[in-house]
Amino acid sequence: MSLLVVGSIALDTVETPARKAETVLGGSAVYFSAAAHRYTPVRLVGVVGEDFPEEHREFLKSMDVDIAGLAVQPGETFRWHGKYQGAMNEAETVSVDLNVFGEFDPVLPQSFRESDFVFLANGAPQVQMKVLEQVKGATLTVADTMNLWIETAREALDQVIGSIDVLCLNENEARMLTGEHLIARAARRLMDLGLKAGVIKKGEHGMTLATAGATCALPAFPEENVADPTGAGDSFAGAMMGYLAREGKTDAASLMRAAAHGIAMASFTVGGFGPQHIADIPIEKVEERVHQLRAICTF
Amino acid sequence: MSLLVVGSIALDTVETPARKAETVLGGSAVYFSAAAHRYTPVRLVGVVGEDFPEEHREFLKSMDVDIAGLAVQPGETFRWHGKYQGAMNEAETVSVDLNVFGEFDPVLPQSFRESDFVFLANGAPQVQMKVLEQVKGATLTVADTMNLWIETAREALDQVIGSIDVLCLNENEARMLTGEHLIARAARRLMDLGLKAGVIKKGEHGMTLATAGATCALPAFPEENVADPTGAGDSFAGAMMGYLAREGKTDAASLMRAAAHGIAMASFTVGGFGPQHIADIPIEKVEERVHQLRAICTF
Repeated sequence: MSLLVVGSIALDTVETPARKAETVLGGSAVYFSAAAHRYTPVRLVGVVGEDFPEEHREFLKSMDVDIAGLAVQPGETFRWHGKYQGAMNEAETVSVDLNVFGEFDPVLPQSFRESDFVFLANGAPQVQMKVLEQVKGATLTVADTMNLWIETAREALDQVIGSIDVLCLNENEARMLTGEHLIARAARRLMDLGLKAGVIKKGEHGMTLATAGATCALPAFPEENVADPTGAGDSFAGAMMGYLAREGKTDAASLMRAAAHGIAMASFTVGGFGPQHIADIPIEKVEERVHQLRAICTF
Repeated sequence: MSLLVVGSIALDTVETPARKAETVLGGSAVYFSAAAHRYTPVRLVGVVGEDFPEEHREFLKSMDVDIAGLAVQPGETFRWHGKYQGAMNEAETVSVDLNVFGEFDPVLPQSFRESDFVFLANGAPQVQMKVLEQVKGATLTVADTMNLWIETAREALDQVIGSIDVLCLNENEARMLTGEHLIARAARRLMDLGLKAGVIKKGEHGMTLATAGATCALPAFPEENVADPTGAGDSFAGAMMGYLAREGKTDAASLMRAAAHGIAMASFTVGGFGPQHIADIPIEKVEERVHQLRAICTF
């Protein structure tokens, strides 16, 4: 079934203890697509500036991503400069230049409006709402968010939450949004918000999935070599949504299997640099890691 | 098979946001026994003062705990006063009075020396070594430790680690001991220390088990009502060791199943107050939660 992603396309500068990569391709929609394209073709909506290199456009096309929704605006592409230290759990943002992404006004091509599976990557809830208003008859709508919007745009975020099926957010964001310290409680509170499911990403601690019937959880794949965590959450979402769109399913058991694919994919993401190396991973390798993940938590 | 625990017996004062319990029965060996006795009879070695209430001794006897190794010394019983706030992840120690436990010189009754399964609860590594020197031909020796000993008695702790089969410690202690931020790496470094297995307790994030062949992990049981986390780690260990002693097994798959029992038991521990309420939980209830835990992470 068709899969739509709306999110950022960025030129990232990423510093890790091991290396510094300058002005490389990044952004939530890119990492999402690099993971999802292994499962099903992706429709992408985003915006770049006139400086966006042709090679990056070619990279998206090489993954069979439909870039009919990729707008080019006068000005520069969104730039993010992040730095990872120590445990590399969280990036310290050195600088952000929203550039054309600051005025992002997503317009979905007519052919994208009836997408079956829709993923709204982290972004201003007002912008996410604009997308939801254009989408018609989707099977599953999923949105990601972040602390910034929970703190500064709660009303708009609540409107998004009231309009989607599944919210995807990280551990501390789940705590912040629900006011619950304990993840098991935060998971249940997400359901009180009227969602069909809540996906709480916990980094090296894996994932908690809240559905109407149960709170489930999976450990992370024990990847020992974390080179660069950039894009881990977006590629998790990409594999999760790609799996669901490929299978055409949205039940709780399918969400768990999809999350396992997300965990497997994210473990590849953190082990290397940039979206290109995920895009190159054969689906068989991901499936092998899904099987390993199953073995890891079987008793 | 026979199961021996050596650890503290305390009179605890515990403050949580909901209530304050003063001078109640606590201590690592007590929580361990309350969990383990459901699986197999427990032999206990510890020390109390002359003030130790008869009712607590009766409680231990009521669980079929062999208290032939319970020494009574002139002076007062070990007292710990802890306070939990906010996320209740970690106790803030208000006060500690080691009293007779400060001079704890464990002497194992002759009948305890050939115990098959031995658990050294958290304590000074020098004291743990004294126990190991008295134990002969054990099938499995497991020790717990804490940040205090990692920081102040590393040499003695290394000697303990070199003499046991399995080390049990919490997430941050594993990081401190191995110098690795990432739990997946810390787990492997534990194996480099010559252990047969490492058990990393991660609270609401579950447990990581390192064995020679693999790094496995289980999520926590999503208990939403955390009343008092005191004794969670010790009752985890009690159920784990109780299960292994009952089954008479020490292979990796059995360790995983044992850890699942530990997680299930610990979820009961945090849901109530004191060791008595764990002691009263029928084994069928624990087994039911083990099955639920399996369902929670099945995909």
